[in-house]
Amino acid sequence: MSDARAKRAVVLLSGGMDSALTAALAKTRGFDVYALTVDYGQRHAVEVRRAAEVAAAIGVDEHRVMKVDLAALGGSALTDRSIDVPRDRSDAEIGAGIPSTYVPARNTVFLALAMAWAESLGARDLFIGANALDYSGYPDCRPEFIEAFQGLARLATRAGVEGAEWSIHAPLMQMTKAEIASRAHEMGIDLARTVSCYIPDASGAPCGTCEACRLRARGFAEAGLPDPALDASTGN
Amino acid sequence: MSDARAKRAVVLLSGGMDSALTAALAKTRGFDVYALTVDYGQRHAVEVRRAAEVAAAIGVDEHRVMKVDLAALGGSALTDRSIDVPRDRSDAEIGAGIPSTYVPARNTVFLALAMAWAESLGARDLFIGANALDYSGYPDCRPEFIEAFQGLARLATRAGVEGAEWSIHAPLMQMTKAEIASRAHEMGIDLARTVSCYIPDASGAPCGTCEACRLRARGFAEAGLPDPALDASTGN
Repeated sequence: MSDARAKRAVVLLSGGMDSALTAALAKTRGFDVYALTVDYGQRHAVEVRRAAEVAAAIGVDEHRVMKVDLAALGGSALTDRSIDVPRDRSDAEIGAGIPSTYVPARNTVFLALAMAWAESLGARDLFIGANALDYSGYPDCRPEFIEAFQGLARLATRAGVEGAEWSIHAPLMQMTKAEIASRAHEMGIDLARTVSCYIPDASGAPCGTCEACRLRARGFAEAGLPDPALDASTGN
Repeated sequence: MSDARAKRAVVLLSGGMDSALTAALAKTRGFDVYALTVDYGQRHAVEVRRAAEVAAAIGVDEHRVMKVDLAALGGSALTDRSIDVPRDRSDAEIGAGIPSTYVPARNTVFLALAMAWAESLGARDLFIGANALDYSGYPDCRPEFIEAFQGLARLATRAGVEGAEWSIHAPLMQMTKAEIASRAHEMGIDLARTVSCYIPDASGAPCGTCEACRLRARGFAEAGLPDPALDASTGN
């Protein structure tokens, strides 16, 4: 394999701030970034459109959107409009248990698709914006899940059988939301078009009360920074 | 969870003979069968239509087809018409190395989708027709891959975190193609509509020379049985 191909990485890009920083960090580590967004039938489909803007702002080598209809399989408030997205949960509630916004097997599906593309590109590095500090308790955001997937990749692929080492990078895993906001600010990443809200309006303006909004707001507040997306949404 | 839900299993059903027997074995083990077929952009798309016939013949509780465009990601002769499917390989060649018909990450994607549906159904059992004896050397058909995925499932899901044990069943793993043909015959499974060929014609008639056709023909020959699909195709 040429050096050029070895420097490729597939980065999962959702349109949110965590994956935006993750993609930027992959670039600073010298990777050519192949960004993959999965349109899985999420209620907040605006994030798929925003992902393209984020990819352009960061300057990735290629951005792809894949459709996988996880919504048809059910089981999550993020894909099923008959299940309410929890609002105004306390910090203690956010830290306890797995909420109804958990999407069954989502990150396993995402990483599997990223791995498929990576193998075709000759890449052995995947990046995911998973975070296990200021998060919603999703099982597939924990370091033990990421490590297990890395082991699986070695067994699942031609590249692994031929001796290649896969690396699943989750550079935000041990960062607080405040650290994520600060780091993105320091790196000059434009977060104005990122969207974190689970139930934004049609223009992408956040609700302000869902768990994703609350975690994001707390992060910017603790970092002492304004949220550029809020400034942007008032200008819409 | 009720006993009724605990008896559900998601079975990956391709339209070929291996997954047909796998689905039938899941039924004989007392599971309610939820069959999942993935339309991944395979050249032999006739297998997706045949899977519905196989599901009906076996009598599954539900059959779903999901689209995931692995063809767009490239890297396989099974999805890219510019890559030739190998024909007339010798038995020694079939046993050596991973051929161009390997589809990057296919079984990881398939099991991830099956796991997503299973979690929504309250099922903890997945069945896959993977086979590591008379096979093409695909890494994601080996027992170590299946075991690794089972470990991943425990870490990746709400059910796993809550203590449920996932089981990834691959009942054909150590069977020869001859044993698979014999067992299906004994169980009275109608294999006439199954299709194994990688490059069948529009009616589903097999080429007879690709690796999948050769493995299947050898299996029926060693079992001393006619291939009912060949009889059926001459009647098309």
